[in-house]
Formats: sequence, structure tokens, C-alpha cells
Amino acid sequence: MMDDEPRAGEVVMALPAATDAGVYFIGVIHTPWTKRGDCPKRGTLDGPVCSIVIEERWREALTGIGDHPRIQVLYWMHRARRDLVLQTPFRTGKTAGSFALRSPVRPNPIASSVVTLVGVEGGTLLVRGLDCLDGTPLIDLKPDRTGTSA
Amino acid sequence: MMDDEPRAGEVVMALPAATDAGVYFIGVIHTPWTKRGDCPKRGTLDGPVCSIVIEERWREALTGIGDHPRIQVLYWMHRARRDLVLQTPFRTGKTAGSFALRSPVRPNPIASSVVTLVGVEGGTLLVRGLDCLDGTPLIDLKPDRTGTSA
Repeated sequence: MMDDEPRAGEVVMALPAATDAGVYFIGVIHTPWTKRGDCPKRGTLDGPVCSIVIEERWREALTGIGDHPRIQVLYWMHRARRDLVLQTPFRTGKTAGSFALRSPVRPNPIASSVVTLVGVEGGTLLVRGLDCLDGTPLIDLKPDRTGTSA
Repeated sequence: MMDDEPRAGEVVMALPAATDAGVYFIGVIHTPWTKRGDCPKRGTLDGPVCSIVIEERWREALTGIGDHPRIQVLYWMHRARRDLVLQTPFRTGKTAGSFALRSPVRPNPIASSVVTLVGVEGGTLLVRGLDCLDGTPLIDLKPDRTGTSA
């Protein structure tokens, strides 16, 4: 499943033998991008409308979400390797630690994006602002707090 | 480990039989709050200094983090139940879906807070802005994007 091999300026760390907690994939994200190279580097709120389809089991948990114009989306970057501690992004050429970067490559490949809610159709949300691959697993949705408080 | 029993206005959903992916606890958060009732409802950037201690294995991944005045912290709310789809917060008395609330109770109990970085001492970050229990497991750190872009 991993697309990348380590490059110059990258340092690999052995992963622990076991994970400490489990996540449920609660839905799936559909976007126009089917290859990583096609994804925009950073989603923008005037980007294309993408859809987030919630699993039947969790649909009732969407009750009232339409009251929130901006939603924080957490998703699982299932294609990213998890064992790099230092990385050297092509874009900057500067080596930095994984926690000083927003790269998908990190011990827990969880992304956080803020999106604008365009519509809700049953268990599907239509949103703008994502930059992830089509088929990415969803792990959480929350009302966004940006702009009101940290 | 769960502190809460369902109350009026809450709806429970059976959890799936298995989780879909695993997370590593990469460190631990120390705060002044040892009981949930003592935690502030929402951390503020002028709140007390808390410490985030990174596990030895991951310390090199902090390289360069001091360049970022604001950090997004993802942590695992290990005391929260995961099986409510509708909740009725005491504060509002209004029933809403778990995805329309920032309550700790959600299928994947992952919290996201933005903090100000006060200092870095080896593998320990000193920060302001948290509101979680002492001993909460850390799962990710990223440079904050708030204020520059969604």
C-alpha cells in the first residue's frame, strides 16, 4: 500500500510492535483525484465540490450538522508510510521532523482539513476544501472552531 | 474506563465488531487537571502552561518544531465512550448528533487543539491552550494552519 521509498534526507524509525488504540472508518471521501500526484497540495474553500459518504450505522450522528457552515474533517491517509522521523519535502528541499511538517507521512497518518458545507443529502455531505485522494477513509467530523477560538 | 452512562436524550449505537486501523500513542500530555470536571470547557491561549512529553523513539521527528509559534495537537480521549450517535449536552440542553458537537464522545475519540508553543526542552514541549486531562495520550503534532488558510 505504500507508494514511497525513503529518499536522501529521510530518516526511518522502526515502528512499535503493536498499536495502542483502534479507529473505525466511519465513511468514505470522494474527490476528483485518483492519483496522489493529481491532488492539490492544499485544499481551498473555492475548490471543487467533494462528497463525504457516512456509513449507515453513523448517519443519525449527523443530526444538526447543517447548522455549521464550516466543518473540520479528520481522515486517514491510508497510502502513507508511517516510519519516517525526518523528511525533506521536494517543495522546500529543507529537512525537518515529521511533527514540523503537515506531510501525510507521520506515525499516525491522520489529516485535519476545514471545509465549507455546501449541502447535506441524506448520509452524504457535499463540501469544498479537501485535497485528498478519492476513496480516502473518513474518521471524524466536528463543527469547526477556527475563527472563534483556538 | 468509561465515566458516563447514557442519559435522557442520548442514543447508543452498537460499535462495529472490529476497528479498521491502529494508532500509536507517541507521547503523553501533562496538565493541571486530574478529574474531568476540573478541565476547562475549552482551552485558551492564555491558559496554564502544560507539557507534552514525546516518546524517545519519536524525538527526532520534533526537529524544527520550534519554528512554529502555533501547533495543532491531536490526542486520544481515552476516557470517553464511543457509541453515542445523539447527545444532549448539559450546557445547551439541545440534542444533536455526535458529528455536530465537539464532545469527547464520538466513534473515534480524537481531539484537535491549537496551542501556542512556549518552549522546547529536549523531548518536551511547553504549550498553552490545552483543556485535557493529565495523562492524556498524544497521537500527533503538526504546524498550525489556522489564520493562513483552511
